[in-house]
Amino acid sequence: MINKDGHTQHISQQFNAELEEVRSHLLAMGGLVEKQVNDAVNALIDADTGLAQQVREIDDQINQMERNIDEECVRILARRQPAASDLRLIISISKSVIDLERIGDEATKIARRAIQLCEEGESPRGYVEVRHIGGQVRKMVQEALDAFARFDADLALSVAQYDKTVDREYKTALRELVTYMMEDPRSISRVLSVIWALRSLERIGDHARNIAELVIYLVRGTDVRHTGLTKKRRQLPGEPEEIAP
Amino acid sequence: MINKDGHTQHISQQFNAELEEVRSHLLAMGGLVEKQVNDAVNALIDADTGLAQQVREIDDQINQMERNIDEECVRILARRQPAASDLRLIISISKSVIDLERIGDEATKIARRAIQLCEEGESPRGYVEVRHIGGQVRKMVQEALDAFARFDADLALSVAQYDKTVDREYKTALRELVTYMMEDPRSISRVLSVIWALRSLERIGDHARNIAELVIYLVRGTDVRHTGLTKKRRQLPGEPEEIAP
Repeated sequence: MINKDGHTQHISQQFNAELEEVRSHLLAMGGLVEKQVNDAVNALIDADTGLAQQVREIDDQINQMERNIDEECVRILARRQPAASDLRLIISISKSVIDLERIGDEATKIARRAIQLCEEGESPRGYVEVRHIGGQVRKMVQEALDAFARFDADLALSVAQYDKTVDREYKTALRELVTYMMEDPRSISRVLSVIWALRSLERIGDHARNIAELVIYLVRGTDVRHTGLTKKRRQLPGEPEEIAP
Repeated sequence: MINKDGHTQHISQQFNAELEEVRSHLLAMGGLVEKQVNDAVNALIDADTGLAQQVREIDDQINQMERNIDEECVRILARRQPAASDLRLIISISKSVIDLERIGDEATKIARRAIQLCEEGESPRGYVEVRHIGGQVRKMVQEALDAFARFDADLALSVAQYDKTVDREYKTALRELVTYMMEDPRSISRVLSVIWALRSLERIGDHARNIAELVIYLVRGTDVRHTGLTKKRRQLPGEPEEIAP
């Protein structure tokens, strides 16, 4: 039973089973996407063209998973006409798959950069940052999915808050790499490949944050997007705009 | 009546009115987003800090519109339990607002680059490309919304197909700008600002394509995402992977 943790009990066992199934499909897709992020980062760091190629090939599978889950959601909406928390669950799932699919896209882009770097020769800088930020966003994806699996709004909140840290480190990395390019213009093309990969990682963090916000919406019933959710409550007039993570 | 063009007639006038209202809110949000894209591009080209600042301020309004439309969709799903084409309409709207909101985000990023370029001094290259690609993606957004307004799957298809042209021109521009940076390393930071703006424009094209694909789903009832929709039909084994636009 998915609903023992505070969710409404259903009379229809069949409906319960359907909800559980679509949720488990989402989590399976999430697991695969998380692996894609990890593999893409490793392919870039280890200059492993074979692994990068594999990431690109698996992307089709992820796109197919998105379509299937989407169809399941539409079927449930049409047949079961869910209300309240069940409706929120279906909405959260149908939006989360969009973010998961786009995380998959970004992983594929990183894999493409990995292949390009294998061809052009490695970048003189940036691998430490890719490893570091890659580890951070991979953890964000993993925890956002854990939060979804356990209906854990607190974990989701900490994932969403963490996105600020990633953004900050991304910007620092970017500044350093731009400075390096100015000193060694011959490296521009290769360093840019690393910058694109870092940008994809930063985007993956944004998508993980989106998923985390959907978990909060699912559990608490409030939409926290664009509201500065890191504050847990609405901002009062005169309060500072951001609270440090 | 929104449904005179082939959509199912409703017994409930009230329901009809609700559907019409949420759709008109989507189109209003779309109009504002389209203006944001236009203003952001002009702010960058004309080094107009005031206009750039205005784009950034209006972004909050767009975020609020997204939340409102989203709530309307959830309310309709919960109360009206729409089926078939009505359900597809609500799903298409609730997904399109996500893309519109992200187009707004990208416009804001372009505005930030415009401000940065005003501070650092203008880039020696890239403005022609920003104007050109900016015009293309703005047209894509406009036509995707027109297609939504008129349930026009053919127009939506041509918008989606056009995305390939934008991607190709973006890549050409990128290559030229990278070459320029190598020749004049002191310009790297400023040229990069233009590159980021171009990347945002390319993303806006992707989001317009997403909206166009949702219109096709809405009108035809088939999900064309990730299927190479530019071909209108499934690819046969042995066929070339892409057909030139």
